[in-house]
Amino acid sequence: MIEAMMAGNVRALARLISFVEDRQDGWKDAMKSIYGTTGHACVFGITGSPGAGKSTLTNEIAKRLLRREHTIGIIAVDPSSPYSGGALLGDRLRMRDICTDRNIFIRSMATRGVLGGLCQAARDVARILDAAGKDVILIETVGVGQDEIEVVSASDYVMLVTCPGQGDGIQAIKAGVMEIADLFVVNKADKDGADELASEISAMLDLSTEMEVKKQSVIKTSAVTKEGLDDLVKNLEGFLNEKKSGSKRVRDQVRQEILSIMEREIVGILRERIMSNGRLEGALDLVMADRSDPYTEVDEMLSGYSLMEHLKKTEEGDKP
Amino acid sequence: MIEAMMAGNVRALARLISFVEDRQDGWKDAMKSIYGTTGHACVFGITGSPGAGKSTLTNEIAKRLLRREHTIGIIAVDPSSPYSGGALLGDRLRMRDICTDRNIFIRSMATRGVLGGLCQAARDVARILDAAGKDVILIETVGVGQDEIEVVSASDYVMLVTCPGQGDGIQAIKAGVMEIADLFVVNKADKDGADELASEISAMLDLSTEMEVKKQSVIKTSAVTKEGLDDLVKNLEGFLNEKKSGSKRVRDQVRQEILSIMEREIVGILRERIMSNGRLEGALDLVMADRSDPYTEVDEMLSGYSLMEHLKKTEEGDKP
Repeated sequence: MIEAMMAGNVRALARLISFVEDRQDGWKDAMKSIYGTTGHACVFGITGSPGAGKSTLTNEIAKRLLRREHTIGIIAVDPSSPYSGGALLGDRLRMRDICTDRNIFIRSMATRGVLGGLCQAARDVARILDAAGKDVILIETVGVGQDEIEVVSASDYVMLVTCPGQGDGIQAIKAGVMEIADLFVVNKADKDGADELASEISAMLDLSTEMEVKKQSVIKTSAVTKEGLDDLVKNLEGFLNEKKSGSKRVRDQVRQEILSIMEREIVGILRERIMSNGRLEGALDLVMADRSDPYTEVDEMLSGYSLMEHLKKTEEGDKP
Repeated sequence: MIEAMMAGNVRALARLISFVEDRQDGWKDAMKSIYGTTGHACVFGITGSPGAGKSTLTNEIAKRLLRREHTIGIIAVDPSSPYSGGALLGDRLRMRDICTDRNIFIRSMATRGVLGGLCQAARDVARILDAAGKDVILIETVGVGQDEIEVVSASDYVMLVTCPGQGDGIQAIKAGVMEIADLFVVNKADKDGADELASEISAMLDLSTEMEVKKQSVIKTSAVTKEGLDDLVKNLEGFLNEKKSGSKRVRDQVRQEILSIMEREIVGILRERIMSNGRLEGALDLVMADRSDPYTEVDEMLSGYSLMEHLKKTEEGDKP
């Protein structure tokens, strides 16, 4: 499967992604064996509030990058749903005009309510697309929240998409997100208020860059008039070259990657065991009967596994 | 501190929250000792995209609930920021006209990039406010993403706030979120398009309720004309009475609470140990030198702790 994928087989690529996403037997060996071939793709996180036009913009960017002979992977991250999973179809339908090109691969994913799932899952898929030879990977994520923050550690660069007419304008861009973004896009520039929004963002950036070295650009785009799109793509290619020549925050990214793999591993195992051996329901019975509280029960369960003591002991054994 | 808080001392309440949030020595004992007095408050999650007017609406709701002699806790959850933390000041400034009332307590919190942090931290604070005697707790969270999903398991009821003019209207309400919400609010009803948006949501709800029992309401509100606000508060009081008389999804909530406390506990310990004993940086060195990959290193680190084997053994020992 991996060989076929490396040779450019699209179905093998799709199957490998599912294989890893579903954590089928051997998924980790697969990731280990492709890891050495990765690190060449440039990963862009595209984020912003719903309705800012991220999908349409991604579509326009992809079309232009294709024309300039890049190979592209798109990862569309939908909000996790414990109930149904996935997004309404609108977003995906709009992408139809690019999705038949053989130099592009689009993957839509729901986060499935897994704790820490989004970040790790997107990272896995990005790694696989990287191994499959895509040189640009676009991760589109929604919202101004945890998802957005998480996608940063899976991306080389982050683009924040805003648009005029979204209620409170710049208020919608919360602190923290400003610092995260490498590039600001004011989309729907054909609408009223785009110039004001762009000026507000620039002013805010000027304020914050007084203290820092990083210089972020603000670009106005419109899928209607096509304004700014070529300029945006030129900017992205600039980042591409920068990534090739240096190693921007790569060590930090790999550190996060290791921590996140580890946490997911241990939490998954613990959750499965505690749910399957009846202890959780037993603890629940006690709490519901007002005979205990969740904190005491967690202490009980973890000490049942002697986990804390075990960790402490191993730790002490480590030290000289 | 706990006694003073129970007696209505606001500073003791604020200090207890910080004490628990910062995980100071004894935080868990504090949570254990207040747990028995909790379970009386009704927790509403208020969610929706940025700029939908959630803060202003929360303000209006709080004012009306105060007049009807409720005591209120507000938890404002800001997007996690690894860089700065917290929201722009706008939101909080608007709340100024309620925040001097002694029957209301407002707490703003950033999630601080802790994995699974938002949900657990908000739940802790809600528990404390509950113990302090607040009968209505409003958790305001931003975004259509992981945060939104997580806040559900910390709330008794969820209100989804939308408004006209946010780009794609109903498209912004992703699947999954529809099922999560107990109440839909079309805010900024004084603006064009509010009626259409309300109709779209109702139509979508009619479609989905054909299969289910749950009947969700759609209420139009405006902070400008004050339309719908009394109606909304009446609806909330309906939920309050429902909660008092029954135990809607309480067992599920407590199950999630136990799991989430446990995960946070174990991840915190693991992260701290692995970062402090130099193993993480050693693993990083190997990966950066292309001599290993993150998956192999995680296996190594976890087996260094014999953690997996230990869990398996304990598990087997448990079985008859």
